[in-house]
Amino acid sequence: MNEITDQLLHLVSDFTGSFQGAYNIREDGQCAGRQSTKNIRIESKQGLPGLEIHIAPGTKNETVYIPACVTHSNVDDLVYNDFFVGENADVTIVAGCGVHSDGEEEARHNGIHRFILGKNARVLYKEKHIGTGKGNGSRTIDPVTDVTLGEGSYLEMDTVQISGVDHSTRKTTGTLGPRSKMVVRERIMTTGTETATTDFEVTLQGKDSGVDLISRSVARGQSHQEFSSKIHGKTRCTGHSECDAILAEQGTVTATPSLDASHVDAALIHEAAIGKIAGEQILKLCTLGLTEEQAEEKIIEGFLK
Amino acid sequence: MNEITDQLLHLVSDFTGSFQGAYNIREDGQCAGRQSTKNIRIESKQGLPGLEIHIAPGTKNETVYIPACVTHSNVDDLVYNDFFVGENADVTIVAGCGVHSDGEEEARHNGIHRFILGKNARVLYKEKHIGTGKGNGSRTIDPVTDVTLGEGSYLEMDTVQISGVDHSTRKTTGTLGPRSKMVVRERIMTTGTETATTDFEVTLQGKDSGVDLISRSVARGQSHQEFSSKIHGKTRCTGHSECDAILAEQGTVTATPSLDASHVDAALIHEAAIGKIAGEQILKLCTLGLTEEQAEEKIIEGFLK
Repeated sequence: MNEITDQLLHLVSDFTGSFQGAYNIREDGQCAGRQSTKNIRIESKQGLPGLEIHIAPGTKNETVYIPACVTHSNVDDLVYNDFFVGENADVTIVAGCGVHSDGEEEARHNGIHRFILGKNARVLYKEKHIGTGKGNGSRTIDPVTDVTLGEGSYLEMDTVQISGVDHSTRKTTGTLGPRSKMVVRERIMTTGTETATTDFEVTLQGKDSGVDLISRSVARGQSHQEFSSKIHGKTRCTGHSECDAILAEQGTVTATPSLDASHVDAALIHEAAIGKIAGEQILKLCTLGLTEEQAEEKIIEGFLK
Repeated sequence: MNEITDQLLHLVSDFTGSFQGAYNIREDGQCAGRQSTKNIRIESKQGLPGLEIHIAPGTKNETVYIPACVTHSNVDDLVYNDFFVGENADVTIVAGCGVHSDGEEEARHNGIHRFILGKNARVLYKEKHIGTGKGNGSRTIDPVTDVTLGEGSYLEMDTVQISGVDHSTRKTTGTLGPRSKMVVRERIMTTGTETATTDFEVTLQGKDSGVDLISRSVARGQSHQEFSSKIHGKTRCTGHSECDAILAEQGTVTATPSLDASHVDAALIHEAAIGKIAGEQILKLCTLGLTEEQAEEKIIEGFLK
C-alpha cells in the first residue's frame, strides 16, 4: 500500500494504520488488503470487478470498511460492490473514496454499490469523497448506489464531498418495502470549475414506508451543481425532500425535485432554497470581531455540519 | 349569439347580458361581438385567427373582456391574441373560456395569448376555464400564455379551472425586465378521468425582478394532474413557487418544480406538498355537525378560494 493511499484512507475513512473488523482496501483497481470476520464475509465478485459482502443475520455493532483509492492519473477504476445485509443486523458501512492526481491524465473512480437489506436490518452507510494532488488531470468520482429495503428495515446514507473532486455524478436509487425507511443526508461543496450532479430516485413501494432526503450544498468559484430528485409514492407512505444551496462568488445551482403521488394516502413534501448568505448573518458575525471572509467561512462550516 | 354562449359567458366572465368597456366575444371560432374604447383598440390579427389589443399608455381602471366559447362538439378552435399594454397603464383583462359538448366528437379551444407590458404598466389577468354539456366527446382547453414584462411593470395572473374540462395543457412563459414582477395564482380541480397539465417557465432577466407562483389543486375521482415549473434566476432577483395538491378518491398528482440559479444574487425558493386532507381537519368539522363528505367539501372549497 503506497503513501498516498495511506493519506487518502485517513481522509475518507478515518484510517489510522489499521481497521477494526471487516475491511477491503481497493488501490488503483487492485485489492491492497482484506479481512473478513465471523459475521461479515467479504468475497471477490465472480465475472465482474468488485466484492460481495455478506452480513450474517443478527450481526450487531460491527463496521465494514471498503475504501477505494486512485493514487495517480490515467486510472479509470470501475467496481461493483454488493451488500447483502441479513435480518435484524445493525451495522455501519464506510465506503470512502479518494482520488489523487499529480499528472495530466484523468483519474476516475466509479463505484456501483448495491444494498439489499433483510427484514428489520439497519445500516448506517457513510460515504466520503475527496480529490487531492496538484495535477491538471481531472479527478472524477461517479458513485452509483442502489438500495432495496426489506420489510421494516432502515438505511441511513451520509454522503460528503468537500472539494477537490473536479467532476462527480452521483446516482442513488431506492425501492422501499413495507415499513422501511431511507434517510439520505448529502453535503457537497464545489469550488473552482468543479461540477457536481446528484440524482435521487426513490420508490415508496411498501405500505408505511418513508424517505427523508436532505441535501445541503455550497457552490463557490465558478462551480456548478445540479440536484434532481424523484419521489414516487405508490402506497400509504411519507416522503420528504429538502434541498438547500448556498451560492458564493460565481457559483451556480439548478434544483429539480419531483414528487409523484400515485396513491391517495401518499403524503409527499418538498422544500428548496437557493441563494447567497444573507447580509444580516454576515453582519452579525462581523460585530463579533470576524472579518467578512471569516464570517462567511463560519456560516458555511455550520451549514455543512 | 346562442343561448349556450350566453350561459358560458356568465360562468367564465360574470357576463350579465352586456360588458362594460372593451370586449370581443369569440363563439365557435367566429366573432360574436366586439367593442373598442377610446383607450383600448381591439383589431383582427392579420394573417392569423385572433386579435391585437392595443391599450394606450396611461389607461386606468378599464377592463377588457375577451371570452371564447365553443358551444358544440367537432370544433377545434385556435386563436392568437396579442396584448400591447402601454406605459403606466393599469387595466384588468378577463379571458374566460367555456367549452360545451353534447356530442360524441371533441370540442377544443386553444388560445395563445401574448402580453407585452410597457414601462410601469400593471395588468390583472383573469382566466377561468370551464367545460359543460352531457356529450361523451372530450372537452379540451389548451391555453398558452407568454408574458414579456418591461421595466417596473407588474402582471398578476389569476387562473381557475374547476371541473368539466376533460383535458387541459397549460403552458405559461414569462420574461421579466428590470424591477418587474409576475404573480401567478392557479387553482385547479379535476374529477372523473380528467387530466390537467400545467407548465410554467419564468426567466428573471432584469435586475430586481421577481416571480411568485402559487398553485393549488385538487385531484379527485381517477383524475391526474401534472405540475411543472422552471424559474431561471439570471441576475439579482427573487423567485418563489409553491405547489399544494390535495388528493381525494383515486386522484394522482406529479409535481416537478425546478429552480435554476445562474447568478449569485438570485434568491429562489420552492415548496410543494401533496397529500389527502388530514384526518384531524375532517374530525374537527364533524364535531361541528358536518358529515365527513360535507367536511371534505368545506375544506376543499376553502383551499381553492
